[in-house]
Amino acid sequence: MPKLITTRTRIADLGKPRIIVIGGGFGGLEVVKGLAGFKAQVVLFDKYNHHTFQPLLYQVATSGLETNSIVAPFRKLFGGQADFYFRLGEVKNIKPEENYIETSIGGVRYDYLVIATGAVTNFYGLDEVARQASSMKNIVDATKLRNKIIRQLEYALLTEDTEIMNSLMDFVIVGGGPTGVELAGALTELKKNVFPKDYRELDMRQMDIHLVEASPRLLNGMSPQAGEKALKFLTNMGVKVHLNAAVKSYDGYEIQLSTGEKLISRLLIWAAGVKGNPVEGVGSDKITRGNRLRVDEYNRVKGFENIFAIGDVALMEGDLKFPNGHPMMAPPAQQQGRLVAKNIKNLIQKKPLKPFTYFDKGSMATIGRNKAVVDLGRIRFQGMFAWYVWMFVHLMSLVGFRNKVFTFFSWMWNYFSYDRSNRLIIGRNEEKINQEELTKQTA
Amino acid sequence: MPKLITTRTRIADLGKPRIIVIGGGFGGLEVVKGLAGFKAQVVLFDKYNHHTFQPLLYQVATSGLETNSIVAPFRKLFGGQADFYFRLGEVKNIKPEENYIETSIGGVRYDYLVIATGAVTNFYGLDEVARQASSMKNIVDATKLRNKIIRQLEYALLTEDTEIMNSLMDFVIVGGGPTGVELAGALTELKKNVFPKDYRELDMRQMDIHLVEASPRLLNGMSPQAGEKALKFLTNMGVKVHLNAAVKSYDGYEIQLSTGEKLISRLLIWAAGVKGNPVEGVGSDKITRGNRLRVDEYNRVKGFENIFAIGDVALMEGDLKFPNGHPMMAPPAQQQGRLVAKNIKNLIQKKPLKPFTYFDKGSMATIGRNKAVVDLGRIRFQGMFAWYVWMFVHLMSLVGFRNKVFTFFSWMWNYFSYDRSNRLIIGRNEEKINQEELTKQTA
Repeated sequence: MPKLITTRTRIADLGKPRIIVIGGGFGGLEVVKGLAGFKAQVVLFDKYNHHTFQPLLYQVATSGLETNSIVAPFRKLFGGQADFYFRLGEVKNIKPEENYIETSIGGVRYDYLVIATGAVTNFYGLDEVARQASSMKNIVDATKLRNKIIRQLEYALLTEDTEIMNSLMDFVIVGGGPTGVELAGALTELKKNVFPKDYRELDMRQMDIHLVEASPRLLNGMSPQAGEKALKFLTNMGVKVHLNAAVKSYDGYEIQLSTGEKLISRLLIWAAGVKGNPVEGVGSDKITRGNRLRVDEYNRVKGFENIFAIGDVALMEGDLKFPNGHPMMAPPAQQQGRLVAKNIKNLIQKKPLKPFTYFDKGSMATIGRNKAVVDLGRIRFQGMFAWYVWMFVHLMSLVGFRNKVFTFFSWMWNYFSYDRSNRLIIGRNEEKINQEELTKQTA
Repeated sequence: MPKLITTRTRIADLGKPRIIVIGGGFGGLEVVKGLAGFKAQVVLFDKYNHHTFQPLLYQVATSGLETNSIVAPFRKLFGGQADFYFRLGEVKNIKPEENYIETSIGGVRYDYLVIATGAVTNFYGLDEVARQASSMKNIVDATKLRNKIIRQLEYALLTEDTEIMNSLMDFVIVGGGPTGVELAGALTELKKNVFPKDYRELDMRQMDIHLVEASPRLLNGMSPQAGEKALKFLTNMGVKVHLNAAVKSYDGYEIQLSTGEKLISRLLIWAAGVKGNPVEGVGSDKITRGNRLRVDEYNRVKGFENIFAIGDVALMEGDLKFPNGHPMMAPPAQQQGRLVAKNIKNLIQKKPLKPFTYFDKGSMATIGRNKAVVDLGRIRFQGMFAWYVWMFVHLMSLVGFRNKVFTFFSWMWNYFSYDRSNRLIIGRNEEKINQEELTKQTA
């Protein structure tokens, strides 16, 4: 019998306060950065060894960017930061009374804990939809989605049955927020510029791209103008937008909408919502709407002195402008992360804490070539200039100089060539659609 | 019960001769290219939707290049070529008497068939080694290898047991050909330039990179000078080169060498050989040494008029300079591919066939920064200039202009930053090393 060696996190005791950050998303990164140079040990736990720039996942899924351009290894980002420790592992449980966390690689004590575990896809209890739909929260999801889109077209060539062919060529996106709008736009550009050359055997007029939104308008988080203009852009590009329509069911083939309408597609991309992804152990009473952790104005989880939660996983009560919590986007997470780093220093130095106020820098979404919508407070504009602004802001926000450079080149390339060079199926066999799956789901 | 629809290859009958090419490697691509503009239907079958530039897989495995830079979608390459058809599928069986192939997506008739299925890793009957070792024949292999290398270092942090730590930090490469030499060099550069910053907690002097070669020298396919210089380069870089040593067994932990020596490593990369990968159905009497198909001087599989085999899967007898067949490398495959395209045209136009003669353009291998060895016939040189030549030749050979540009930028980046930005674990959970696997394989 093999002798089992217990693995442990083996994080050295430096005799300094230990601050553990769970999750290296937008918020977590800012906490780690903000603590640079401070006399504390900073430990980052993440399931992945890299930060993912989620706003551009849709471009990976639609072959516009290679995966590596939008991710950055944590050890590269913080390799030079003194007393920084990274551990690849999943945090399973928090024991607040012992100041201790349990992880997939062992347990470890903390002095201060920052929960920055972000969000997961919210299927609102539609279990069958959750099983059958594609979602897009990490780089593996995005790559799988890219594989699936291309594979479906390869399979569409093989059938003469119009319904089966359409089920493979039609794509349904659920959720009219930025992700849904951007995906619909990107798929339409593939349909227009790339697929006709690639699939001369297919009649591309048969391809329909549906965007389904439960509310009466697109881009609910933005101004009415932005929503209207996005609708106009998408409709002109040929996207079939279904407003006031919710998905009732999806079995991998047939989509039932609340309007009574029925769509047929083997690809349903779920971009209809997210929910907080809290860690076990803080107590279910701390979890509030959106599955988020209730935090005070210093981002402390209610009831604890040394446990913070930031970003998508946190819901700060008392901000009158945002009674339902701050938007689950990068900027609140980043701003909270920066402040939490400062406040942890304040705590250690026995200084007073500073409360959080959200500075809304505005929001934007791109629809396609030369088409974007931007809200900057009262300044709102749409079209080509908005598109430049969108590109500039996203380029500058990308983590890592190399990623900026390579993404810039990719975008230039795509713009001038009208091409998307990353239309690759790089996957495992288990993802293949087999003959039996190419079957009508009819009795 | 669902109604099953039989899928078929659905390749349109154009009333022209149909030439089917199995495999889009270096040889297959040249056949397809060579038939452009000719009045024939060209059908390419491949398991992947992209060509893979295999000579640079080792750079993907060692975080030097992103995956997408060394692959090119077939539909992008040949989207503009009239009467070209691509089918994503695996050819299962050839029925020569019916001029018919059976594939994973149905059957189809051919007039001319070109088998360009390349090679697979040869473990020389060592089944346990085959199960435990990593190999590197496609992009998924290379990505898995990259994941494994990085993951092992993440796990090495977690143990205090020196033997377990060494088993995670020591890497063993088997095979002293170009792939083995290039891998050993690239891993050594990671060890020197990247890992010390990333893993400050690990003592990098503990990391040993072993290169095991059964023959008395490295780079057997090249000149003695090249082999000696490569040995010198690697030894100076700290690689432990074991010559005259064959692997007898590997259980995932302990490597037994024929010299009696024992090495401990959880990562054994097998680059010790390849064998032909013929398709079923041509008859086992056609298969000769190296599992390759016996072909005549026109690359026709012996006994058939309209079935050709080229590249790694073909062994041409009668070339006095190469009594054991041409080297299993890109140039013979490409040259044979070009000639087979011409000879198929000749057959259709009832012109005489031209026999193949291999033009040996020389060979080269890179060891690391400013270090390569080049043989161009009698002109042999090593060192920095050789390294420039190696880079130039590989850059120019890369398929697709975009890949050339992006690879060039990546190399410049790596050169000036001493960095490797793609050190990412992008994989599935099933690849994780779990606690139990972190166990000594001792009784």
